[in-house]
Amino acid sequence: MTAFDELMAYQRETSALGQIAGRLGWDQETVMPRGAAAQRGAEMAAIEAVLHARKSDPRVGDWLAAAEAPDAAGRAQLREIRRAFDRAGKVPADLAKRIAQVTSEAQGKWAAARADEDVAAFLPVLDEVVRLKREEGAALAGDGVLYDAMLEDYEPGTTGAQIAAIFDAMRPRLVALRAAILERPMPAGVSGEFDEAAQMALSRKMAETFGYDLNRGRVDKAVHPFSSGSGSDVRITTRTSTTDPFNCIYSTIHEVGHAAYEQGIDDAFALTPLGRGVSMGVHESQSRIYENQLGRGRAFTGWLYGQMIDAFGDFGIADADAFFAAVNRVQNGYIRTEADEVQYNLHIMLRFDLERALMAGDLQVADLEVAWNDRFKADFGYAVDRPSNGCLQDVHWSVGLFGYFPTYSLGNVYAGCLYEALQAAVPGLQAQLAEGDTSGATGWLRENLQQHGGLYLPREVIERASGMVPSEAPLLAYLEAKFGALYGL
Amino acid sequence: MTAFDELMAYQRETSALGQIAGRLGWDQETVMPRGAAAQRGAEMAAIEAVLHARKSDPRVGDWLAAAEAPDAAGRAQLREIRRAFDRAGKVPADLAKRIAQVTSEAQGKWAAARADEDVAAFLPVLDEVVRLKREEGAALAGDGVLYDAMLEDYEPGTTGAQIAAIFDAMRPRLVALRAAILERPMPAGVSGEFDEAAQMALSRKMAETFGYDLNRGRVDKAVHPFSSGSGSDVRITTRTSTTDPFNCIYSTIHEVGHAAYEQGIDDAFALTPLGRGVSMGVHESQSRIYENQLGRGRAFTGWLYGQMIDAFGDFGIADADAFFAAVNRVQNGYIRTEADEVQYNLHIMLRFDLERALMAGDLQVADLEVAWNDRFKADFGYAVDRPSNGCLQDVHWSVGLFGYFPTYSLGNVYAGCLYEALQAAVPGLQAQLAEGDTSGATGWLRENLQQHGGLYLPREVIERASGMVPSEAPLLAYLEAKFGALYGL
Repeated sequence: MTAFDELMAYQRETSALGQIAGRLGWDQETVMPRGAAAQRGAEMAAIEAVLHARKSDPRVGDWLAAAEAPDAAGRAQLREIRRAFDRAGKVPADLAKRIAQVTSEAQGKWAAARADEDVAAFLPVLDEVVRLKREEGAALAGDGVLYDAMLEDYEPGTTGAQIAAIFDAMRPRLVALRAAILERPMPAGVSGEFDEAAQMALSRKMAETFGYDLNRGRVDKAVHPFSSGSGSDVRITTRTSTTDPFNCIYSTIHEVGHAAYEQGIDDAFALTPLGRGVSMGVHESQSRIYENQLGRGRAFTGWLYGQMIDAFGDFGIADADAFFAAVNRVQNGYIRTEADEVQYNLHIMLRFDLERALMAGDLQVADLEVAWNDRFKADFGYAVDRPSNGCLQDVHWSVGLFGYFPTYSLGNVYAGCLYEALQAAVPGLQAQLAEGDTSGATGWLRENLQQHGGLYLPREVIERASGMVPSEAPLLAYLEAKFGALYGL
Repeated sequence: MTAFDELMAYQRETSALGQIAGRLGWDQETVMPRGAAAQRGAEMAAIEAVLHARKSDPRVGDWLAAAEAPDAAGRAQLREIRRAFDRAGKVPADLAKRIAQVTSEAQGKWAAARADEDVAAFLPVLDEVVRLKREEGAALAGDGVLYDAMLEDYEPGTTGAQIAAIFDAMRPRLVALRAAILERPMPAGVSGEFDEAAQMALSRKMAETFGYDLNRGRVDKAVHPFSSGSGSDVRITTRTSTTDPFNCIYSTIHEVGHAAYEQGIDDAFALTPLGRGVSMGVHESQSRIYENQLGRGRAFTGWLYGQMIDAFGDFGIADADAFFAAVNRVQNGYIRTEADEVQYNLHIMLRFDLERALMAGDLQVADLEVAWNDRFKADFGYAVDRPSNGCLQDVHWSVGLFGYFPTYSLGNVYAGCLYEALQAAVPGLQAQLAEGDTSGATGWLRENLQQHGGLYLPREVIERASGMVPSEAPLLAYLEAKFGALYGL
């Protein structure tokens, strides 16, 4: 065996162990007995320790030094392996351990502080998390930019400056669009009770409609919807609300976007570093284009309206146009995860600017709440009423996730680019979607993006698929056209 | 940290990884998407490789050499760790790999041969399995007895000669009891269709009735019922048949016996070598005493009859006495897994004698079918009609399980000893069982046996709990009394 072959055999085992860790996570959120939580913690720690040791195993360094890739895919494999190995070597073990301890503690304190609406109870431990993460970021960055080094974990090859340029161009137009919409009358919503078993049955139908392969996956209920796993075992979860069927249906379509990406990757990459979605942002581009551009578009919602009538009878919406409006209602709200297509990105940009300032040392944790509330008032026009609706609403920072938030909106930006290209490439697209046929769209996405897995870096794969340098322009044009028409702007 | 503490910390991680491997097995049999089978094979191989490497890690040898146990439990921990470490060191890696390859191949050939009723198609690969397992057994045994070395994997501290002495004393009396029963009229069985959801609901009630903690476990359906996991995550499966509700109910009670053993172990042993049932035989003693001595006894079946009427209405059985008889019907049959309490052990003793002869070199694989069929005719009085009802019925030998079969009947023997002691220790036992109250029985078993986990060797824990040297006498007396009364002998 060559060094490259030995390295790849080792990586396949590592990837298989990574899949196992992911499956434990799925188990924990869906079927695990409640009383097993403590033991599960020990099990997760044990497999994570194995994975960590493998990532920094000195043999990987030796193989990397000696390996010669046989082709472009092999070079991409080495690129991914080298990034993970270098990263593991840059962070001192003591620091990594300390971050694990403090974020574990901080997550508990965050949950308690949020329940108590007590920002002050959370800030000391958040300050410690920020201090440690900056230390880690400095170790990772070397002579480079600290925040860019953190982005490498979620969006490799993308810089904070690139993201800021996109976001800064989006913000004023989204603020203006939002304000204009909210001056118009609110469309009617659904009414009545929606049987949960019927919602789950419709969810499964939606999953198949969007090309999810149930022979290599499954749909379950969980408190927070997610997609889990790669290769031939990619599972999704959704949730149900008896009064809001859209929660279930669109959570499903969103997670199917993630899952279809994983299921669509070239089998040749299975259980290798290239055998999974390349970044959080590209992943989110798939979940968002499935959920929003396709799933919430006029064509598809026309078909979905008939499906809903079949499943639930009359639910207070008179026709397909009213249904399209109900699915796309824009309402005031404080919570990121409940936001619509227009306002979601404003929530993200707020967090991106604040966390980038925290990491740069330009914002102190003590000033975070004021900074949050000022920014919210500026973009949304009204004040945050309580911390759980403000700077305590998200778990991310408590567990040390800095550099993660912007990938949500990058996903929307990428989805905008892809949707523009898709419309040009598939002429009968809207007619297909109006019949509940997504194959033209999902087939194009699989062919042009999903199959590549980790082969190309995020911005590269978006550029290859969409034929354009990633830019906010298509997303903004799409949002302004769609919501302009819906709200008569 | 002392060497002992370091060793135990390492073992806890190993145990946690072992639990993960077990959970993957549960997942595979219950919820895994069908299309994930090949990937799951790679995942299982990866975690098994990690576990194997940990068992034979040279650090374990160093720690064992330096470790001083602080107490009796610590000494038992070292005994278990040492046995696993020594075993790993005795089998050459090439041989272990070859066994894994050949048994994997043999299992497929066995399944095909069984489907085709073609013994000749299976014998060459079985011959290779036997050859390799004898080589492994010789490596393990050194100067000792080869078959005894194989028993160590399933029933440590127990010899083939000990088992043979018990089985040889049982066989003539069971052959005679069986023959006498089958001369008597057959009791009536159940009739009608039994709703599968109602069976599962009743199964969950039975699980709780026998003390299974659903907060630390769950009940699902699977093709073959099993119990899986240790500590605070012990799951069971059962199966349903629309015409035979006993299949579901007694599979559940049987698996609850296994699961209650695991759930009953002292928390101090969690995720250590002592934190699981000590042997296959002792495990089976718990599943059997729950299922048979308790679950199929006159007292408990009287209560169960009322539960069945409540769940299913009239199902063709007139009263509790007729129900007791229906639950304990003895019928001719070829298949071990379908056998009743009286005949089951005859199936096992046949296999024990044949596999012991195979391992000793006293029986050749070429002569196996004839030896099987001769023995079956001698004990059961009629001829095997086809190989799938004879020597091709079980998967065990194809996958290299030699030394495993006798533990099923050892479990029955141990259950006999425990039941005799239990009756003496809990005076109101039958009155409790007649009310569906198993707490006296299960509490006694937990206190006297289950809590100890792997602390004592199998025969020792049975002797401590029952107050007698393990012997076939209580089981035989119980069977002759129960079935003598039922069949008017």
